Amino acid sequence: MQIHHISHTLSDTLRHRRQKLAQLIDFPVILWSGSSSPRNFRANTYPFRASSHFLYFAGLPLHNAAIRLEAGKLELFIDDPEPGSALWHGEMPKREEIAAKIGADTARTLSELKHRGHGAASIPVQNYRTSLVQSQILHREISSPYDLEGLDLELAKAIVSLRLTHDGEALAELRQAAAVSVAAHKAGMVATPKAKQEAEVRAAMEGVIIAQNMTTSYNSIVTVHGEVLHNEAYHHPLQPGDLLLADVGAETEMGWAADITRTWPVSGKFSPTQRDIYNVVLAAHDACIATIRPGVEYRDIHLLAATVIAEGLVDLGIFQGNPQDLVELDAHALFFPHGIGHLLGLDVHDMEDLGDLAGYEDDRTRSDRFGLSYLRLNRPLSPGMLVTIEPGFYQVPAILNDPQNRAKYQNIINWERLSQFADVRGIRIEDDVLVTTNGSEILTAALPNDADTIEALVNNLDEEAGG
Amino acid sequence: MQIHHISHTLSDTLRHRRQKLAQLIDFPVILWSGSSSPRNFRANTYPFRASSHFLYFAGLPLHNAAIRLEAGKLELFIDDPEPGSALWHGEMPKREEIAAKIGADTARTLSELKHRGHGAASIPVQNYRTSLVQSQILHREISSPYDLEGLDLELAKAIVSLRLTHDGEALAELRQAAAVSVAAHKAGMVATPKAKQEAEVRAAMEGVIIAQNMTTSYNSIVTVHGEVLHNEAYHHPLQPGDLLLADVGAETEMGWAADITRTWPVSGKFSPTQRDIYNVVLAAHDACIATIRPGVEYRDIHLLAATVIAEGLVDLGIFQGNPQDLVELDAHALFFPHGIGHLLGLDVHDMEDLGDLAGYEDDRTRSDRFGLSYLRLNRPLSPGMLVTIEPGFYQVPAILNDPQNRAKYQNIINWERLSQFADVRGIRIEDDVLVTTNGSEILTAALPNDADTIEALVNNLDEEAGG
Ligand SMILES: [Mn+2]
Ligand SMILES: [Mn+2]
Repeated sequence: MQIHHISHTLSDTLRHRRQKLAQLIDFPVILWSGSSSPRNFRANTYPFRASSHFLYFAGLPLHNAAIRLEAGKLELFIDDPEPGSALWHGEMPKREEIAAKIGADTARTLSELKHRGHGAASIPVQNYRTSLVQSQILHREISSPYDLEGLDLELAKAIVSLRLTHDGEALAELRQAAAVSVAAHKAGMVATPKAKQEAEVRAAMEGVIIAQNMTTSYNSIVTVHGEVLHNEAYHHPLQPGDLLLADVGAETEMGWAADITRTWPVSGKFSPTQRDIYNVVLAAHDACIATIRPGVEYRDIHLLAATVIAEGLVDLGIFQGNPQDLVELDAHALFFPHGIGHLLGLDVHDMEDLGDLAGYEDDRTRSDRFGLSYLRLNRPLSPGMLVTIEPGFYQVPAILNDPQNRAKYQNIINWERLSQFADVRGIRIEDDVLVTTNGSEILTAALPNDADTIEALVNNLDEEAGG
Repeated sequence: MQIHHISHTLSDTLRHRRQKLAQLIDFPVILWSGSSSPRNFRANTYPFRASSHFLYFAGLPLHNAAIRLEAGKLELFIDDPEPGSALWHGEMPKREEIAAKIGADTARTLSELKHRGHGAASIPVQNYRTSLVQSQILHREISSPYDLEGLDLELAKAIVSLRLTHDGEALAELRQAAAVSVAAHKAGMVATPKAKQEAEVRAAMEGVIIAQNMTTSYNSIVTVHGEVLHNEAYHHPLQPGDLLLADVGAETEMGWAADITRTWPVSGKFSPTQRDIYNVVLAAHDACIATIRPGVEYRDIHLLAATVIAEGLVDLGIFQGNPQDLVELDAHALFFPHGIGHLLGLDVHDMEDLGDLAGYEDDRTRSDRFGLSYLRLNRPLSPGMLVTIEPGFYQVPAILNDPQNRAKYQNIINWERLSQFADVRGIRIEDDVLVTTNGSEILTAALPNDADTIEALVNNLDEEAGG
């Protein structure tokens, strides 16, 4: 844990967050940070990630800690390091120092939490060992954060209402994550000409993130098979005609995430067909961002992307028909089968641990429609929300070869024309967009997304690119 | 999962391993691979790591799979991907293809394992959700691999006896992990002059590992505070007078690990005091490796390292007394408070999930002695064993300022002389050494460890170094 470069405003920010929480609920809350998960044996753990809800109110990625919030007060529960720990882990900050940093009103050992759990609400953490402790302290089963009830559900809703929009301290962190992710993508482009397999580009990108003492906020996608949406393989060779799709984001030490996708030609030059489709996706991307402002429904932004993609594919002769009709038939989802984006914050899909509680406005649920079922956010936008905008075009064999799809859409797709675009397996362009009071700000705007500048970066012709 | 570059001998190797197991036990065995552990939300997981015992007999890092071994037969239990999975994860190899790769006699769905658990032995996995399945299938509590009983303990002992020495396929993997780790360390040295903080050197090192489509086999230590033995912070600035200690190892896709430590001067030049201590540690390292051959007690190698270090510190005027006597007083442990090394294989501390079952010969247990308690391996060496040799010298405040130590060792340490070595906070030199029939082979020998060549590498004067 590193608390050396925390701004002195952290404790003010945290105080403000818990005061806002106290205005929404009138019962005590206990949140746990969690502990490290073992990898292949107990002492060989995955890198520790504190629970996001804990991080929001406690600010620091403390191992094995809990906080109790009541009426705006913050009590910290954490044990001082065991004797002998200094040998292996160095001198750690003492409980009282940590308490001062985060503005805790009191600081106690974990054992003192034992009799403080009655009537408290909480959110189950991902770490199993910690969830056992949660059940024990709260005197009740605490299992999945997907189906909360009673006070826990009330708490979750209150936290969602806070975390939906970002305060200044959060934005400062999110901007840092965005800036490092931008640099990572540039490094990936620059490294491509010399790379022989996907893993080498991934290394160049993650190297930038590691060098800044950050982590990836999710498992990177760096692939010439962009049609596999969550491709986590990195062994494919890079061929001159390939497009490389890189969905890579950084996470700050305090846990705040970025999420960027770019797609570039391995050769440094888009083929005419690749460029055509790229520009369709980019048009959808730009149209969506131009629409973002408070009050706009995110679902409408998704449908706008669908319409722009359908229009583009009509213009290219791949689709036949009226774009609006095509979208109503979900034809766009043949090539754009995911949602236009999601909330972004402490989690890359922010608060997805709570299922759709954050993503979906009260009384809204997921659609069954092929073209809407993967929409992760369905709310009107409001200032301070951070969302991704990530339209794409993919030729997914499982979708395009599906007999039902082929029957349903047989008069809509010009298969012969489509076959001319075989060198476009997958394209996605993703930026992180902050809703402002009168429009939007692209936090990842420093990363070019037009085809010409992308080519220049891959060819190391762009002055900014660096090495 | 990637099964594209598996040698065609994998199934032969696995058959041989299970035949050897069948000679040791006469009851059925079920081993589970485990599943991904969630990070901050369910869909955002840590990179999957299959259980090492599973990997040893199944060869491939399969998610959510189990194998049943009986009388040399291999039954594979794994579900085909769910419909829709191809959209997100691409076409995965089918059960029958996987079965063919690993030479399974039969291949079934996981649900068919339900009635096959009676009387079977197993080893608990690290992943909690999988451990619930284990208990269910085996009709009994299965919790910690630290205190096994009955058939499970018999199984663990049999597996230990196999995994203690490495076959050809294992060695081929271990050599790959070693080679990539060597390249990572060279890249770290080369990157040091331009780096401003530890994280940048870490990035250069892990970048090499990621580029080869490998992972780190443990959380890297890259620090100018080598006196913190398990330092996992990377934010310290690099200052010209610092030594940088890097303990970084790669793990192949099939799970085989390397573990290397080097210590180099940030400036590219050891100070005279740093070089003096460095050469003491190197002398211990070389003496230990020169001693390795079948039949030698690893504990004696540890004590040899302690003796050589004590001698060196006497020569430097830091210790006063006879080296043998100093070791008997555990004085060496003031500066060398850990063991000389450990087993290396599928786990960086191989089979440490079983506690000391692998590391300690039957009827041996850990010593209480300050100078021996951290010894992780206490067995006679035999051909095919792979061990690390990693002597070190550290000035740990928690040890050197301890009043009991200061009292006990007051006539042994020349504190004034020691104060002249203040620029040596921590040095470790670690290589991976295979016991051969008539001596040893250093798998990591391609990485220089003498002070002059280390300096040349950091100064980018070494021809091999590359970029
Ligand atoms: Mn995204
Ligand atoms: Mn080691």
